[in-house]
Amino acid sequence: MSEAGLATGAARARASGVERAAIDAALEEFCGLFLDGLPAAVADAIRYSLLGEGKRLRPVLVLAAFEAAGGEGDASRLAAAVEVVHAYSLVHDDLPCMDDDDMRRGRATVHRVFGVAAATAAGLAMVPLAVRAALHGAELLGLDDVQVKRIVAELMRASGASGMIGGQLLDLEGEGRSLTLDELERIHRSKTGALIAAAVRIGGIAARADEARLTAFGEYGAAIGLAFQIADDVLDVTATTDVLGKTAGRDLVLKKSTYPALLGVEGANKRAAALVDDACTALARRGLLTAQLEGLARYVVARRN
Amino acid sequence: MSEAGLATGAARARASGVERAAIDAALEEFCGLFLDGLPAAVADAIRYSLLGEGKRLRPVLVLAAFEAAGGEGDASRLAAAVEVVHAYSLVHDDLPCMDDDDMRRGRATVHRVFGVAAATAAGLAMVPLAVRAALHGAELLGLDDVQVKRIVAELMRASGASGMIGGQLLDLEGEGRSLTLDELERIHRSKTGALIAAAVRIGGIAARADEARLTAFGEYGAAIGLAFQIADDVLDVTATTDVLGKTAGRDLVLKKSTYPALLGVEGANKRAAALVDDACTALARRGLLTAQLEGLARYVVARRN
Repeated sequence: MSEAGLATGAARARASGVERAAIDAALEEFCGLFLDGLPAAVADAIRYSLLGEGKRLRPVLVLAAFEAAGGEGDASRLAAAVEVVHAYSLVHDDLPCMDDDDMRRGRATVHRVFGVAAATAAGLAMVPLAVRAALHGAELLGLDDVQVKRIVAELMRASGASGMIGGQLLDLEGEGRSLTLDELERIHRSKTGALIAAAVRIGGIAARADEARLTAFGEYGAAIGLAFQIADDVLDVTATTDVLGKTAGRDLVLKKSTYPALLGVEGANKRAAALVDDACTALARRGLLTAQLEGLARYVVARRN
Repeated sequence: MSEAGLATGAARARASGVERAAIDAALEEFCGLFLDGLPAAVADAIRYSLLGEGKRLRPVLVLAAFEAAGGEGDASRLAAAVEVVHAYSLVHDDLPCMDDDDMRRGRATVHRVFGVAAATAAGLAMVPLAVRAALHGAELLGLDDVQVKRIVAELMRASGASGMIGGQLLDLEGEGRSLTLDELERIHRSKTGALIAAAVRIGGIAARADEARLTAFGEYGAAIGLAFQIADDVLDVTATTDVLGKTAGRDLVLKKSTYPALLGVEGANKRAAALVDDACTALARRGLLTAQLEGLARYVVARRN
């Protein structure tokens, strides 16, 4: 893929200002609907976590897949529900007992602002919140109960033991020792890949895509999810904290195994580019490769933060 | 209600050995199905948390309501899914940053055996696990997707901000200062009552009960949930650690407002008994008051631990 191709893809993906606004509005709406009954500090921590900056990659992927599969209606709340799960994972990932980070998305991490107890509690409350938000989003979209059930199952599979949480814990366990490429890939496929793949599949399910198309969405999502993580590892060694919006060089400090460490920066970039090609091929075979989905795949590796 | 009536009710509720065995088997099954991808210590912590002793009150309530509403089939997995949420809440409730307790159900708390990190992670992984278990249980029961959706919504509402988590946090926030009876009731209606009410309603939903009956199940559940918490407060001051299976006198140490402190032991017992009567009346009006549901309501206040 040429540099120019990458840049165009990235520009196209960034140009989704309308979608971003709709996602942010949905996240605001969730804060109004689902935070009742929480102590003020915890509700504030959740609001801070949901309403800050962020690439909104996962919800944009939901919307892009939804559109590619011919979905009709406003899927922004359903999309935003996936972002709630992602935001929750960031809150907990940054905690002192996990990666112990002070900065995220260009500002102080949640526990640095609201304290560890409120941040931990906020994260806990965000999983049920995400499910309720997804149910709410599915209802507004007029989905059948069969789709709703599948969407919740996707979201929970991606969030739990075999997905994000399992991956985070394996990641933590792997700190300080050398992992093989296979081990590293397994961690990242669950830690980052599962939710990204679920986002794409959820968009497809909401658009009532058939099984073959859902499989293609899953393949695309898994491939760009892994590419995303490889790019993350590369950025951690090549970008500055300022551009990154989170502390650069963190992997080295935590003695984490990374793709650049195992493959070199160039090797890692090649692997990421190959995954992006695989992702696009999977969609193209099923007539699902829209300009937006291609752009998002390219953005994942071309991004600067 | 007479002492004899209480004792009979308690005996009847305890006599559900077959149901308990089915629930425990379902919890075993979940451990086999849903712990893949977790580090061994975290999987072990979840297993320990799910497979120990326990009254299994919530799943027994699911089954009792299911039967009272004429449900057909084996609802044991669906019932056990509710226990997963409860078990999760106990793991986190006992953590040093929460109630900081060493003993639960007659043995060491999860974080005392597996460490705080594994216990925290175990709790996190248990929410998605509960949802997946509920979907699994609903599927085996052959429920329609409309019921499945309602069941997941009930479970998440009871687990999140407006339910268990919100209540736990308000409880924590209230430590060390005097609460009014209204404040205390609000905490316990969300902390303990929401999941107990959800358990009863979920049994009803699974049996395809109509709205009027679901309302009655909810009223029954909310009333016995509050009665349960009042009884808990009374036991904390009147029972020994040995009988209780958890540290007695803990509320005093944590300077928690309790019902006996506000109403005296006798006043608290009276309030609990009145709630049990209310609970049974709500069901009787809709022809749902089976011997088991009456027995469970009485057991809630007559129990010794």
